[in-house]
Amino acid sequence: MDHKVVGRSIQRKDGVKKVTGNAIFGADIDLPGQLYGAVCRSPYPHAKIKAVHKKKALELPGVYVVLTGAECDKLFGQYIEDQPVIAREKVRYQGEPVALVAADNFLTAQEAASLIEVEYEPLPVIDSVEDALKNEILLHEDWSKYNIVGDCHPVKSTNIGDIFTLSKGDVNKGFMESDLIVESEFSCSMLQHTTIETHCATAYVNKSTREITVYSPAQSPFAIRSVLARSFGVPLENVRVICTEIGGAFGSKYEAKAEPLAIALAMFTNGRPVKIQFSREEEFLASVARGPVKFKIKTGVKNDGTLLAQDVTIYWDTGAYVTTGPRINYNAGFAACGPYKIPNAKVESFCVVTNKSIATAYRGFGVPEVVCAHEHQMDLIAKKLGIDPLEIRLKNILTDGDLSVTGETMQDIAVKECLEAAAKNVEWYNKPLRWISSDGKFCGKGIACFCKLTGTPSNTSVILRLNENGSLTILDASREMGQGVTTVLPQIAAEALGMDVEKISVSPVDTAFSPYDKTTTSSRSTFHGGNAVLLAAEEVKKQLLALAAKYFKVSLAQMEYVEGNIRCKNDLTKSIHINEIGKSGILREQPPIIGVGAYSTVDLFDKPDPTTHQSKRPTVMWMFGAQAAIVEVDPKEGHIQVKTIGAAHDVGYAINPLGCLQQIEGSIIMGIGHALTEEMIYKNGDLKNGNMLDYKVPTFMDSDVDIHISLVEKNHKEGPFGAKGLGEPGVAATAAAIVNAINTACETNFNAIPIKPENIIFKEEV
Amino acid sequence: MDHKVVGRSIQRKDGVKKVTGNAIFGADIDLPGQLYGAVCRSPYPHAKIKAVHKKKALELPGVYVVLTGAECDKLFGQYIEDQPVIAREKVRYQGEPVALVAADNFLTAQEAASLIEVEYEPLPVIDSVEDALKNEILLHEDWSKYNIVGDCHPVKSTNIGDIFTLSKGDVNKGFMESDLIVESEFSCSMLQHTTIETHCATAYVNKSTREITVYSPAQSPFAIRSVLARSFGVPLENVRVICTEIGGAFGSKYEAKAEPLAIALAMFTNGRPVKIQFSREEEFLASVARGPVKFKIKTGVKNDGTLLAQDVTIYWDTGAYVTTGPRINYNAGFAACGPYKIPNAKVESFCVVTNKSIATAYRGFGVPEVVCAHEHQMDLIAKKLGIDPLEIRLKNILTDGDLSVTGETMQDIAVKECLEAAAKNVEWYNKPLRWISSDGKFCGKGIACFCKLTGTPSNTSVILRLNENGSLTILDASREMGQGVTTVLPQIAAEALGMDVEKISVSPVDTAFSPYDKTTTSSRSTFHGGNAVLLAAEEVKKQLLALAAKYFKVSLAQMEYVEGNIRCKNDLTKSIHINEIGKSGILREQPPIIGVGAYSTVDLFDKPDPTTHQSKRPTVMWMFGAQAAIVEVDPKEGHIQVKTIGAAHDVGYAINPLGCLQQIEGSIIMGIGHALTEEMIYKNGDLKNGNMLDYKVPTFMDSDVDIHISLVEKNHKEGPFGAKGLGEPGVAATAAAIVNAINTACETNFNAIPIKPENIIFKEEV
Repeated sequence: MDHKVVGRSIQRKDGVKKVTGNAIFGADIDLPGQLYGAVCRSPYPHAKIKAVHKKKALELPGVYVVLTGAECDKLFGQYIEDQPVIAREKVRYQGEPVALVAADNFLTAQEAASLIEVEYEPLPVIDSVEDALKNEILLHEDWSKYNIVGDCHPVKSTNIGDIFTLSKGDVNKGFMESDLIVESEFSCSMLQHTTIETHCATAYVNKSTREITVYSPAQSPFAIRSVLARSFGVPLENVRVICTEIGGAFGSKYEAKAEPLAIALAMFTNGRPVKIQFSREEEFLASVARGPVKFKIKTGVKNDGTLLAQDVTIYWDTGAYVTTGPRINYNAGFAACGPYKIPNAKVESFCVVTNKSIATAYRGFGVPEVVCAHEHQMDLIAKKLGIDPLEIRLKNILTDGDLSVTGETMQDIAVKECLEAAAKNVEWYNKPLRWISSDGKFCGKGIACFCKLTGTPSNTSVILRLNENGSLTILDASREMGQGVTTVLPQIAAEALGMDVEKISVSPVDTAFSPYDKTTTSSRSTFHGGNAVLLAAEEVKKQLLALAAKYFKVSLAQMEYVEGNIRCKNDLTKSIHINEIGKSGILREQPPIIGVGAYSTVDLFDKPDPTTHQSKRPTVMWMFGAQAAIVEVDPKEGHIQVKTIGAAHDVGYAINPLGCLQQIEGSIIMGIGHALTEEMIYKNGDLKNGNMLDYKVPTFMDSDVDIHISLVEKNHKEGPFGAKGLGEPGVAATAAAIVNAINTACETNFNAIPIKPENIIFKEEV
Repeated sequence: MDHKVVGRSIQRKDGVKKVTGNAIFGADIDLPGQLYGAVCRSPYPHAKIKAVHKKKALELPGVYVVLTGAECDKLFGQYIEDQPVIAREKVRYQGEPVALVAADNFLTAQEAASLIEVEYEPLPVIDSVEDALKNEILLHEDWSKYNIVGDCHPVKSTNIGDIFTLSKGDVNKGFMESDLIVESEFSCSMLQHTTIETHCATAYVNKSTREITVYSPAQSPFAIRSVLARSFGVPLENVRVICTEIGGAFGSKYEAKAEPLAIALAMFTNGRPVKIQFSREEEFLASVARGPVKFKIKTGVKNDGTLLAQDVTIYWDTGAYVTTGPRINYNAGFAACGPYKIPNAKVESFCVVTNKSIATAYRGFGVPEVVCAHEHQMDLIAKKLGIDPLEIRLKNILTDGDLSVTGETMQDIAVKECLEAAAKNVEWYNKPLRWISSDGKFCGKGIACFCKLTGTPSNTSVILRLNENGSLTILDASREMGQGVTTVLPQIAAEALGMDVEKISVSPVDTAFSPYDKTTTSSRSTFHGGNAVLLAAEEVKKQLLALAAKYFKVSLAQMEYVEGNIRCKNDLTKSIHINEIGKSGILREQPPIIGVGAYSTVDLFDKPDPTTHQSKRPTVMWMFGAQAAIVEVDPKEGHIQVKTIGAAHDVGYAINPLGCLQQIEGSIIMGIGHALTEEMIYKNGDLKNGNMLDYKVPTFMDSDVDIHISLVEKNHKEGPFGAKGLGEPGVAATAAAIVNAINTACETNFNAIPIKPENIIFKEEV
C-alpha cells in the first residue's frame, strides 16, 4: 500500500517539551496549601506490629497528621485486595508502610516519620519460594478474607497466591516417544525498574462531596481509578486521576503505589493536598520490582531435533503481596514453551508470596524470563544433539498453519523470518559458534526467539475532535511512556484522514475527561488505540461528507472522501481538502465534528479453558521476534562485552520505523543490564543494594554495542495498517541470547542471570 | 408528557462543593514557581504616552520583569481587534494598562507597578456620546487599521464603532396615519457587574513549543481561546484554557480580560506562571461594565391604542474599545420595539466610543435597557389615551401568527399569558393604578414585558461517557455560573436515558478536552446543551441496544429501549435496566459506550437582511416574559420600597422549576439595584465611585420584596422537552416595571435610571 504518513519515520511529538524541560512530571506538581507526606517504614521483613507510638512525631512543629493502620484499614489490589495501605497487624516486607505523616514541608515530614516509635515482634523470614512452599509459616493466613477482583487463584492454607496450568496432548507419552530427554533449571534475579522518576502522587479529598483527586504518573489511570474507588469506598466517578508525564515506567506505574498513601493522608487534612514522592531508596525498598523466578524444564526430543514434549514448572516469587502476580503468571505461562511446535506440553506455574518487595509488571510480564529458560534449554538440546542452535530453532519454529502449544492454529506469523534476519544481522552463517580472539578473549554467539501475547479481551476508546481552525485533537487515555503513542496515533489519524500530521495533537490524560482505555501495558496501545483511531476517523469522514454535501448542495450519495479530499464524485470542482477546512469557513456554526472510536477485542477472543488454557484464540495479537548476540569474554578479568546484537522483530507494520528502532535499541540496552549486571540482593529479607551505586544499571559506557535491527513486516490482519505492538518485545530475547552466547563462548552452562565477572573468573554457577 | 426527572425540582449539583468552600476558583490557583502580576494603570482617561520609565521598578528586589507596550504590541478583541493588551501610544480610559509587572509576590508587584514613571500628555476627554458624535476628537484615528473578526461595522472618521439599523414598513406613513404621536427619551446609567469574584488569570507559556496555558473563570473558554490565539499569534490548538469555577459573571467573563495580561507577562518569565487577580478597585475602574445608553423613541398610535409606527434611536456608550459592543447593538436592536405588533418600525442604533471603561455583555446584552425605554413609552401612551397600562399592552402584544417587527411570523409564544400572569401576581385587577397609603406613602403599580433573542446561528457539542460502573459523565463546555447548567443537563440526560440523575455528573471544562461550545451567554445553555445531550443520548441508546442484543443473542431489530429498560420486545425476561448496567457485567471488555451530540441552529436560521434586519427566523429562540411591580414611595424622605414583584416568564418547559424560580428571584433583586441604586459615576472620564461602599448594590435589607413568580410553559418545538432559556430574562423587565410603578405612584415622568431618593424629594428628572 502506498501510505503517506504511516510507514514513515517522524520525530516524536513529545520530544521538544521533554528535552527543553517543559514537560510536567509528578514532582512538578505543587498545589496551594499542600502538605508533604512521608512514610514510616518497617525495618523488618516480617514482624508483628505490637504498638505504634505517634506522640513524638505529633509534637514536632509543622506536623499536621500522623496516620496508622488503626485509622486507615483499607486494602487494595489489582487482582486481589491483599495489600493494606498501611500495615496494621503485621508487616510482610522490609519497607512496608507502618505509619504515614503529613507535614508543612518535606524535611519535617521525614523527621516526624523517623520519630514514630513502632514496637515489633519479629517473625521468621520467608526469603525464598522454597521456604515459602513448605507452607509452615503463612504470610497471609486466610486468602478467603480478601476480595478477589480479577483472575486470581490463591491456594488455601499455602503461600501460593495463584496457580496457572496449561496442558496439551500427553507429555508422558511424548517423553516415552523421545530419543532424548533434557532437563534443566534456570533462574532470574530480582530487578528494579529504576525509572528516572520515582513513584509520586499528590492528592486531595473533598470530604463533603467524597471526591478524590490525585495527580499521578499512572500508566493505567482508569485501572487505578477503579482500584482506588474500591479501596476508599467511593463511587468510581468520584475518583479523578490527573496524569502527569511519565518519567519512565516499564510496568512499575501500572499499579497504585504512592496514590493510596497520598489519599489516605489527604482524608485527614481537611481538604489540603498531600504530596508524596518516593526517594530512590524507597523506590528500591518498597515500590515494586520484577520478582525473581525459578524454572524447571524437561524436554523430550527426537535425534533429528524435533521437539516432542515439554514440561515446564515455574515458581514466581511475587513478594509480600500478590497484586499483579496472577497476570504475570498467566502471560508468561502462555509463552513458557516458546514459539515452537510441541505436540505435548505441560506448564505448571506458581505465584508464591515471600517477605520481599512486591513484584509487578516489568516490560514483558514475565516473558523475558521464560525466554531465558526455554532458550537456554534449546541450546542444551542443540549441543547434546550436535545441531546448530539456529537450525534446531528453525526446525521447530511455528509457522502459518501450525498448532501452537496453546491450541491455536497460527496465522500470519513471521518468527521464522525473525530468526533468519536476526542471525543474518550477526552474520551467523559466516562465523563459527565459538572462537578465541587474538588477544585471548573467548568469543561466542547465541540466539533466542520468543512469543508474547497481548492481554485479551481488552477495550479502548478514542475521540477525535476537529477544532474550529481545522486542527485535530486526539483524546485518548494511552499514556506516553517513551513508546511513542503520542506520535503513532496522530500518524494513524493523519493517514486515515489524509491530513497533515502536524495538524494533529494528543490531549493530556485525565479520567475526568479522557475516553476509557483499559491500560497502557501489554504492548497494546498502537494496536488498540490505532484501531480506535481508525474507527473514529471513519466517523469524522462521515460527518465531514455530510457537512460538505450540504455546503455544495449535493446529495450525500454523490460525495466521496479520497485522500483528504471531500468532494463531489461527478464534479471535482466541488472539493475541499481536510487540510484547508479550517480556513474554508465550512465548519463555521455547524455541528462540531467529533468522531468516537470504541474498540474491543472481546469478539476476537476465545476464552481459554481454565485448566488446560487451550484456546482457538487466546490473544488477538501474538508478538514475535528473535535476537542474536555476539559476546567477548575476558577469561582472566571476567569482563563480558556484548559486541553485537542482531535483532529482528515482527512488528506487523512499522507505523513509525524510527520509533520502532528506538524502542528496540533502548530495550536491548535494558536487556544487557538484566543479563549482566542487575539484581536486587536480599539476605533473609534484608535488601543489601537498594541504591543506584550498588545496583548496577547499564550506563552509556556499557552501551558500546553494535546493534543491527530488522523490522519484519508481516501485516496483522486486524492491526491498524497491519501494525502490532513493540513495547515489550525488544527486551524479550536479549538476555537469553546473551546467556547462550556466553555459555557457548566460555563452554559453560550458566543457568541464571545476571552473569557477572566473578562468575566467569571462578566459573561458578550464577 | 409524563416525565420522571425533567420538570421536577432538584437541588443544584454544584451546591455542596460551593457551600462547603471546596470549589476551586481562580484565586485558588497557585502554581509552582508562580510570579504575581500587577498593572500600572493610567490615571488619565485620555492621554498620549510620551515615555515609560521602568528603572525604579526594575530595581526593586523581587521584580522579575516590567513590560510595556513597546515589548508587547498585541491587540485583541472579540468582534474587532481594537484593544491593546498594553497601551502604547495613548491611553483611552482611566485605568488602562500602561505597563505590567511580574514579581515574586503580590505586594512587590504592586509596589513596582507604582514605581513605574509614565510621562503623559493629557488629551481632551470624550465623556459622553454627545461629545463623541461631534467627531472632533477621534479615540481611534483609523478603524481600518484593526482586524474585524466578527459582525462589526465601524464608521470611518467617526467615534462610531458599530451601526445597527432595522426597518419594516414605512414609519413616516405610519406616523401620518396615527391619531397621536408620542415622543420620549430614556437613559440608563453605567453599571458594574460586581461579581463576588474579580477577574483573575494564571498563565504559563512554553516558549519552545509555543504553548500557552491559562487558568481562567472564562464564561466562553473556546471564544477566549480563539481571541488569545489570534492575539498572540499561535495556532488555536496551542492555547489551553483550563476553567476555574466562576464566582459570578453575568457577562463580565465573556471577554478576555486578565488572561491577555497574564499571558503577556508569562511570555517573558522563562516558563514561570504569572497570576493576576484584579482588586475590587481595578474591577470597577478597568474591567468591564454595562455601558450607559440613551434612547429616543417616537411612536404613532391610534386613539384606541393600536400601535402604528415606531422610530427608535439608540446611542450605546461602549467605552474606550468596541469589543463586544456590536453584539449588544444587534441583540438589543432586535428587541428595541418590544414584543408588539407594529406595522411600521425603524431602529437606528449606534455603538459609540468614549473615554470610559469598556462596555460588555451584562445579563441581557442591552435588553433590560431597551425594555425600560419602550415600556416607559408604552406607559406614556397609555396615560395620554387614558387606557390601562396592561390593556394597551395586551391590545398590541404579539401572539401566534402575528408578524413581528423583525419580519417573522411568530409561533408558540406566550408573552400575552405572561402579561396576564404577571398582572395576576400583583392582583392588578383588584388594585387601583395609584393610591396613597394610610401613612402617606405614594403607592403605584407598573408593568413591563419584553422579548429577547438568543444568538443564532450557534453550535455546541456534548459527549456522554458511560463509565465502567454504569455511571455517566457529561463532557461539555457550558460553564456553570449559577444558572444551573450542571444540574439541568444531567436531568435531561437522565430523562432521555431513563437513568437515575444521581448517577450522572458533569466534567469540568478545559479546552484541551471539552467538546466545543460556542459560548455560555445568551441564555443558550439549556436549549443548545440540552439538545446536544438528547442527540448524544440517542447514540448511547443505540450502542446499548447493540451491546444488549449481542448479550441476549437476539437481533438488533428485536431490541427496544423503554424508560431505561434495554430489552427484547418479544421476551421481556431479556431485559436490563440502565441503572443496573454497571453491576450486570454487560459492559465488561466491550467497546466503551460514548455518545456524541453535536448541535447547531444554523439550519433553523434565516440570515437577516444587513440593513433592514428583516428575517423569517432571526433567532431560534425568542424569550418572553413580563413583570409587574408595586412600589411605595415616601414623598418626604424619598425612600422607594419595592413591595411586590409579580413575574411571569415563558420558559417553554421548566426542566428544573426550583432552578427557574431561583434564577428569576435573583434577577429581580439585581433589577431592583439597576432601577434604584446602581450607577458608575464619571466626571470628565474620572470614575468617582469605584468601590463597593459608594457603588450601591442591593443588600439583603433591600431584598425585602414579595416575589410571586409564574412559570409559563408553552413548549418550544425545538427545545429540549420544550425548554427555552432563562439566564437573562429574569432581569429584563424588572427595572422597567419599577420605573413605571414609580412614575404612576408619584405622578412623575422619570425617564432615567437609577431613580434615587433625591430624585423623589426634589422631583427632579434623573
